[in-house]
Amino acid sequence: MGDLMRRFWQPALLASELPAPDCPPVRVRLLGEDLVAFRDSDGRVGLLAEHCAHRGASLYFGRVEAGGLRCVYHGWKWDADGACLEMPNEPATSTFKDRVRQPAYATREKAGLIWAYLGPPGTAGDLPGMEWLGLPPDHLHVSKWILEANYLQGMEGEVDSAHISFLHTNYDLDSVGMGEDFGRVSNWRNDLAPALTVNETDYGFVYGSRRNYQDGRRYHWRLTHWLLPTYSLIPGTRWPIGGRCWVPIDDEHTWTFNYWYNADAPIPESDLAWIESGIQVPPVLIPGTFKPVRNKENDYQIDREAQRTRSYTGIYGGGTQDRAIVESMGPIYDRTKEHLVSTDVAVIAARRILLRAARDLQEGRAPGAAAGGSMYRARPVDVISEHAQLGAVLREHADEIQARTERSYLSLVAR
Amino acid sequence: MGDLMRRFWQPALLASELPAPDCPPVRVRLLGEDLVAFRDSDGRVGLLAEHCAHRGASLYFGRVEAGGLRCVYHGWKWDADGACLEMPNEPATSTFKDRVRQPAYATREKAGLIWAYLGPPGTAGDLPGMEWLGLPPDHLHVSKWILEANYLQGMEGEVDSAHISFLHTNYDLDSVGMGEDFGRVSNWRNDLAPALTVNETDYGFVYGSRRNYQDGRRYHWRLTHWLLPTYSLIPGTRWPIGGRCWVPIDDEHTWTFNYWYNADAPIPESDLAWIESGIQVPPVLIPGTFKPVRNKENDYQIDREAQRTRSYTGIYGGGTQDRAIVESMGPIYDRTKEHLVSTDVAVIAARRILLRAARDLQEGRAPGAAAGGSMYRARPVDVISEHAQLGAVLREHADEIQARTERSYLSLVAR
Amino acid sequence: MGDLMRRFWQPALLASELPAPDCPPVRVRLLGEDLVAFRDSDGRVGLLAEHCAHRGASLYFGRVEAGGLRCVYHGWKWDADGACLEMPNEPATSTFKDRVRQPAYATREKAGLIWAYLGPPGTAGDLPGMEWLGLPPDHLHVSKWILEANYLQGMEGEVDSAHISFLHTNYDLDSVGMGEDFGRVSNWRNDLAPALTVNETDYGFVYGSRRNYQDGRRYHWRLTHWLLPTYSLIPGTRWPIGGRCWVPIDDEHTWTFNYWYNADAPIPESDLAWIESGIQVPPVLIPGTFKPVRNKENDYQIDREAQRTRSYTGIYGGGTQDRAIVESMGPIYDRTKEHLVSTDVAVIAARRILLRAARDLQEGRAPGAAAGGSMYRARPVDVISEHAQLGAVLREHADEIQARTERSYLSLVAR
Repeated sequence: MGDLMRRFWQPALLASELPAPDCPPVRVRLLGEDLVAFRDSDGRVGLLAEHCAHRGASLYFGRVEAGGLRCVYHGWKWDADGACLEMPNEPATSTFKDRVRQPAYATREKAGLIWAYLGPPGTAGDLPGMEWLGLPPDHLHVSKWILEANYLQGMEGEVDSAHISFLHTNYDLDSVGMGEDFGRVSNWRNDLAPALTVNETDYGFVYGSRRNYQDGRRYHWRLTHWLLPTYSLIPGTRWPIGGRCWVPIDDEHTWTFNYWYNADAPIPESDLAWIESGIQVPPVLIPGTFKPVRNKENDYQIDREAQRTRSYTGIYGGGTQDRAIVESMGPIYDRTKEHLVSTDVAVIAARRILLRAARDLQEGRAPGAAAGGSMYRARPVDVISEHAQLGAVLREHADEIQARTERSYLSLVAR
Repeated sequence: MGDLMRRFWQPALLASELPAPDCPPVRVRLLGEDLVAFRDSDGRVGLLAEHCAHRGASLYFGRVEAGGLRCVYHGWKWDADGACLEMPNEPATSTFKDRVRQPAYATREKAGLIWAYLGPPGTAGDLPGMEWLGLPPDHLHVSKWILEANYLQGMEGEVDSAHISFLHTNYDLDSVGMGEDFGRVSNWRNDLAPALTVNETDYGFVYGSRRNYQDGRRYHWRLTHWLLPTYSLIPGTRWPIGGRCWVPIDDEHTWTFNYWYNADAPIPESDLAWIESGIQVPPVLIPGTFKPVRNKENDYQIDREAQRTRSYTGIYGGGTQDRAIVESMGPIYDRTKEHLVSTDVAVIAARRILLRAARDLQEGRAPGAAAGGSMYRARPVDVISEHAQLGAVLREHADEIQARTERSYLSLVAR
Repeated sequence: MGDLMRRFWQPALLASELPAPDCPPVRVRLLGEDLVAFRDSDGRVGLLAEHCAHRGASLYFGRVEAGGLRCVYHGWKWDADGACLEMPNEPATSTFKDRVRQPAYATREKAGLIWAYLGPPGTAGDLPGMEWLGLPPDHLHVSKWILEANYLQGMEGEVDSAHISFLHTNYDLDSVGMGEDFGRVSNWRNDLAPALTVNETDYGFVYGSRRNYQDGRRYHWRLTHWLLPTYSLIPGTRWPIGGRCWVPIDDEHTWTFNYWYNADAPIPESDLAWIESGIQVPPVLIPGTFKPVRNKENDYQIDREAQRTRSYTGIYGGGTQDRAIVESMGPIYDRTKEHLVSTDVAVIAARRILLRAARDLQEGRAPGAAAGGSMYRARPVDVISEHAQLGAVLREHADEIQARTERSYLSLVAR
């Protein structure tokens, strides 16, 4: 599965972690590898193996100097591609520096993120063409935090529309800034057992969750995308569109990258305070870290009185509710103990597609979705419709969702 | 050995940890299993596997609601027996909930404790009939704390009368509130090499430790019980009777449950302050935890000056002295490095009985003591006697100790 | 390699950790073994296995009493050789105490250190005869701290003259108290690629690093000793002579012992403040521990602005710079990823000699250097010379270095 993950461009860190040319380097752990990222004098980002190829000193303590990152142990200087620019402890006549390379990965910078490709040289496709990658900075909010669990557990929460009827229920909706959308959000509690249908696509799938609407006549449909390997695009409540991706740090830790965006307008100043409050995502972080203040060591500051009276969980903030549940499963949940039901159909579909793609890669067939690009130009919607079938809703909103729906996908669980 | 432990009712938590119907659930780890305990609307205590049978979310974050514990991820609601009362994310027509069970263990509530039976269904006997289980609440003080070591190390200290002549010596006896009993306690230092005799019984054994009494003529006998699997009953100094049991959390951690009682009268108010001072047991705990303030991270706050002048150990409190020594052996002591002597005869007897019972169980013979009940009605005594043989002292105090002594048990170590 | 290490006397702890007869004992972990050191009533130091031979209680909590260390569990009392002086819980007639011994290692006290021999009985040689072991206390400063990495990584930094041109560069030399020696230290930056030559000796090797001197005509030679198993003797800048040895605590932790000395005069009072400032070694320690305040948990308090403008690393203090780099390699660096160059010739030589000696010992040939004594009477120098060959410089300064140079040692790396 790690080999499959490496065939996709993925966010590695926030661009703001490397704010300027020649700023201090930062540590980045991805897929079990310890790396160091730096921004050279020209603004280009390098992503190198953490330990210097000479004697293993950490390049995190290195000096970012004209054109490269210099190890402070013996002064070897590496450029963003891993070439050795200087080897000053060797005699001037030595050519050894031309024969040594520091392991390095390709990077790109877009949408406030540094993207990395960790796959074999020559196999990289394009960045995924999700529309938020092309937006002006003021239309977009990106953030990251640590999930102390396997990536899959986090990702599964994104294709599980049913849980919002429970986990994210706040009896006092005003307290979460849901005023204008009250009607639709409250519909989550109107129908607790949504019917899910998965429609496989080139990039993964679009799935629809259908709830009876509170007018007793129509349906409340949420059409959500899952894009390989771990992206989601989810229709907002207060926000037009958001989503997350889940980049493995290692088997038991995950970078959660979150993106909120409005394709049509800048984010109002007043909303930034709402975002930073932790009421939705991102969570409030411990300063100087990407670890949330509410975390498993303090039981996410659960308030049992609030749980009894105002909030389903007693845990403040939707993102923290998700994280609490996902981490509570333990670092890697033993899924042989699960008992899946009909609302888990999208979870099952995502697992099958990932496993199929991993097996295909083992047999020499690279994942088609790794080509990236315009294939990823999908948009989620949250609509009230008279249609009872996903196909009809997809047709009704075809322009808006822009999703390819070439293959039909039968419901996977029927007990 | 874990299988043997599971054949006995054992304390799982304090009843006071679940103070009222529908109060928040608590985590309980027992025998390497993560569990959640809750008290339902009728006051009944459930002890369930921590992770919800659906997708593994921790039920610790659950809502305790009319009749059961509801997982906050998708709202599945479990009763105290592990039956699924509601599965709201399934269609109303689904019968799946009748086919899923949450793993659950039987519980009983008695003597301020929640007792659990973790053995195979249908094999449970009675609670052990020790007299303190039937006393009014004001005659009894129960407490619990964490021992950061294997249960056996803790338990062995309970059948080791010799160590009290050393480990618990305070040259200034008034400081430990031993005023009236000064004579008898000081006799611990009068004879440092007690002669131990073990008398096996149905519930385990009664053993006698005989010290020469300071009048130069009689003997100071302490008759102490060890009851399967890990209970002790010990004659008090200030207190009539006490004891502890040692419930494995996992191989390297143990719940110590302590019971002080007076069968004939309530505990005076003034004595509660003495108990809470940590001078004996329980130790003073870090608020909100069951971890003692004096612990291995701070060397139990050893006072080397006190050790030089007033206290054998320089460690405050008898229970903390025991815990310090037991934890100082490491999480699981390598007993191939031991050199046992004659005062270790009861330690050897307890190990042999446990090993024999574990082997018997492997061969299909369940432990007789697991029947529990009146077999456990034993009482320890601390007496001055003219008799030199355990048999004669047992006969002299037969009514008082009420112990069965059907089998004789020869001294196990004779170097 | 552990067996080889055990054939040499090595520092185990500072003598000042046991300041007086019958003072409290201290824990000492060496070569993966947990030990306890104590000073008996006669001032003799015992070094015993931590866990009492009786039932495994830690002797760290023991009482140091007339002639020995007494376990507080049952009062067994051990002398500094591991003989049992008293076994008070046994009957007076028992002779068992004459047949039990507590594992104990030989110790000596010299130069402010307690030395230990952990090898097989009867195989110990003499203490190494380095001149600082014979100096008056006021000529010598010894200290110790913890390195959170394998000993070899630390030791390799001692035979790596090249790194001082980089890692320890301070552009503002006055700030490190280098005033008078400014010229020579600045020469480190005048020639970044010293030529190293290793000359094997009975005790290990002497090696010379040759830099072009800034007068454009002569050479700046530093002749440094490496003495089995892990000692260095290094010419000072501000200090005449210093060195360190690296005693394994276990595979991933090391005691660093540091010695500064002036063979000819007491250390001036004013210099002690310089030493305690942490600007060189020792580092400033967390009170009550041997862990430095600047450590890996806080990135050694790296100051990135200082790194940009004043100091090559931004890390305060030469010793902390070394430690930061060595620990940054991880607890045990995977040397298959290294790319060694010509300035690593002494590192390679030390590894080869250690491996050869370990293999010899496996085949029954004990290391000759384990005889210790006068063989170790070497002294490092830092000189400006017209000679280009190590042999000529060794002859020129033969009296001063007093090193045996019977075998010639060819340069090991020639790319």
